[in-house]
Amino acid sequence: MSFLENDKSLIDSAMSIALSAEYSYYDKIVEAMRYSALGGKRLRGILTLEFAKMFGCEFDEAIPYAVAVECIQAYSLIHDDLPCMDDDDMRRGKPSCHIAFGEANALLAGDALLTYAFCAISESESAKNHPERAIKAIKCLSGYAGFLGMVGGQVLDLEAAEKEVDGKTLELIHKLKTVALIKSSVLIGCYAAGADEKLSSFAEKYAEEFGFAFQIIDDILDFDGNYDTCELNSYVKVHGIEKAREDALAHINTANTALAELKSKGFDTDNFKYLLDFLIKRMK
Amino acid sequence: MSFLENDKSLIDSAMSIALSAEYSYYDKIVEAMRYSALGGKRLRGILTLEFAKMFGCEFDEAIPYAVAVECIQAYSLIHDDLPCMDDDDMRRGKPSCHIAFGEANALLAGDALLTYAFCAISESESAKNHPERAIKAIKCLSGYAGFLGMVGGQVLDLEAAEKEVDGKTLELIHKLKTVALIKSSVLIGCYAAGADEKLSSFAEKYAEEFGFAFQIIDDILDFDGNYDTCELNSYVKVHGIEKAREDALAHINTANTALAELKSKGFDTDNFKYLLDFLIKRMK
Repeated sequence: MSFLENDKSLIDSAMSIALSAEYSYYDKIVEAMRYSALGGKRLRGILTLEFAKMFGCEFDEAIPYAVAVECIQAYSLIHDDLPCMDDDDMRRGKPSCHIAFGEANALLAGDALLTYAFCAISESESAKNHPERAIKAIKCLSGYAGFLGMVGGQVLDLEAAEKEVDGKTLELIHKLKTVALIKSSVLIGCYAAGADEKLSSFAEKYAEEFGFAFQIIDDILDFDGNYDTCELNSYVKVHGIEKAREDALAHINTANTALAELKSKGFDTDNFKYLLDFLIKRMK
Repeated sequence: MSFLENDKSLIDSAMSIALSAEYSYYDKIVEAMRYSALGGKRLRGILTLEFAKMFGCEFDEAIPYAVAVECIQAYSLIHDDLPCMDDDDMRRGKPSCHIAFGEANALLAGDALLTYAFCAISESESAKNHPERAIKAIKCLSGYAGFLGMVGGQVLDLEAAEKEVDGKTLELIHKLKTVALIKSSVLIGCYAAGADEKLSSFAEKYAEEFGFAFQIIDDILDFDGNYDTCELNSYVKVHGIEKAREDALAHINTANTALAELKSKGFDTDNFKYLLDFLIKRMK
């Protein structure tokens, strides 16, 4: 089993245990939460676990941090799909949450997942043993997920979907909407392990470059060769397919440089190199 | 100036500082957040501040906890008012958030306020000096606000609005939807001060009884004398106006008993007594 499958299965099982209810009257909301939160590639949670592990934290202690970031990811997808947002009927090959459970329950399931993210960390063993680490993680996650991060990016993205955007604005949207959560996934892994500022800053650099490459490649994969039908807020629309590929590779190269710094300090960075190679393969 | 006005003005000014943006591209979301979050009676935040103060915590240290609970309250009202929920066009005498800013921005402003609640506590001085207190508060707030608390209550309330409910179900709805957040407002005030379990448990009892009385009185005030037009999930509809009044007073009496315990230990409980008298006056 690769580390990807192993980590994913640990996260899935922790989330399945966390999102359950003792009393029957909670069935409906829990069902909607589970429907949307159990599944997905768990890329963000895997980044959390792997950085925590590299810096010496046991998986048991790091899992609640990975659960937290995956809850944030799941909530953001549910709310994104709502009629007043992207109005998407399908998600991951099945009806989106509001189609399956109705709008009100989808809204509330998203709210509950967002709220639970902070519960997962604060009720963990790690928070009991190292409250200062848990606080650092909550500060990071709530900052990058909020109005100065992911939610701010959503607002800009909604505006950008309706008018042509320049490269600078698009970079800001990606930074807030996608990179912010990936960065916080990595950083809370570092914090769970009690990594120092210097080490965390190399991890952060990796995360930032990984995040930009990830989003650009997403836009490349969505491109069907026709610029006229391409979404206005796509990297490919704004910069052209050739430059998109070049820029994705440039971000991946810079991410590799950050890894080299960590490797030179004796850390095993193979899994993070593997994730970058995975991005390149996705692009081809 | 009464303590109510004094506390409210401290909370308002802290929230106004917290919910501001350095960069112009955040204007829209911040504007929507401020529109809905700046205003209101601040009853929950006042409970947080006053319990913190009674147990020896300076206001400066307690303010972020009060801000957090008021952000949760503000988010819940924005999402409650959305078309897929209660579909209310007005809130506190002005157009509700989605009428003023559109549905997408209202949804995101709610998400951002919920997220910011945990940021407010985790980035506070108190979290730096006493991370274990901040963690306890975040655990409490995220637990009572989430799917096993307030959000769970919303789900039940939505269902109850469409069919007749029995007294037991209604009590559960009130416990989750209203009492949970009032209870956590009081408890995080205790935790901010580092109060011990015994003292916190008297405060919790007060909060629980206060919360039930508060909700019943709300239903009494909504009653216009006609049972036929009364909402199905109203305490008055389920129990009748006479019993509603009796039960509200019974809860207030039990709350006073909890205060007497605290008073007997030398704490000044006058402000909490004042709040109970305020509830009674509201009912008349």
